[in-house]
Amino acid sequence: MSEIAKTPEPPYYAVIFTSLRTEGDNGYSEMAERMVKFASQQPGFLGVESAKESVGITVSYWSDLESIKTWKQNAEHLIAQKQGREAWYKEFKIRISKVERDYGFAQN
Amino acid sequence: MSEIAKTPEPPYYAVIFTSLRTEGDNGYSEMAERMVKFASQQPGFLGVESAKESVGITVSYWSDLESIKTWKQNAEHLIAQKQGREAWYKEFKIRISKVERDYGFAQN
Repeated sequence: MSEIAKTPEPPYYAVIFTSLRTEGDNGYSEMAERMVKFASQQPGFLGVESAKESVGITVSYWSDLESIKTWKQNAEHLIAQKQGREAWYKEFKIRISKVERDYGFAQN
Repeated sequence: MSEIAKTPEPPYYAVIFTSLRTEGDNGYSEMAERMVKFASQQPGFLGVESAKESVGITVSYWSDLESIKTWKQNAEHLIAQKQGREAWYKEFKIRISKVERDYGFAQN
């Protein structure tokens, strides 16, 4: 996930997931990779950006709220969510937002 | 910026700033610190979260669009924006979004 997501013209949705992890990996890395792979295959998925220092921030982009809801209820994802609460995260916050406007810059 | 922002009940706004930096610091770190300090003093500022690996992600939270616009036009910030395009960023994308819903988790 080393790129800026190539999203379409707004409006679309962004799920901003900010987290503080517990110590150790505890199977997190493998599951995180699986979840990004699965999410990317879901209808309505537009892209994802992720970085972690003291907090981890993952922003996933979606075409509509229904796609976000469907992904939230995906069976594999529900298992990951459970492990997240039990083992991986000290704290997290999820914000569902509607992107109304975007602009960018790229060096020539 | 090592915490999850303590934002109020939605609705509020999130500015999602994703960037790829050029090589070297070139005065970036000092200016970034100044900008976070200044932004925090602006009317309507609610919080900020930031992490950088291959991409940098900074999400700032605001009470309304007018506050975001005022901060964008702040004189000190305009200087930083100019240096950003000229020296610090290979590429960036800014997405203005309205947070419609949020929820969280914290270990006992």
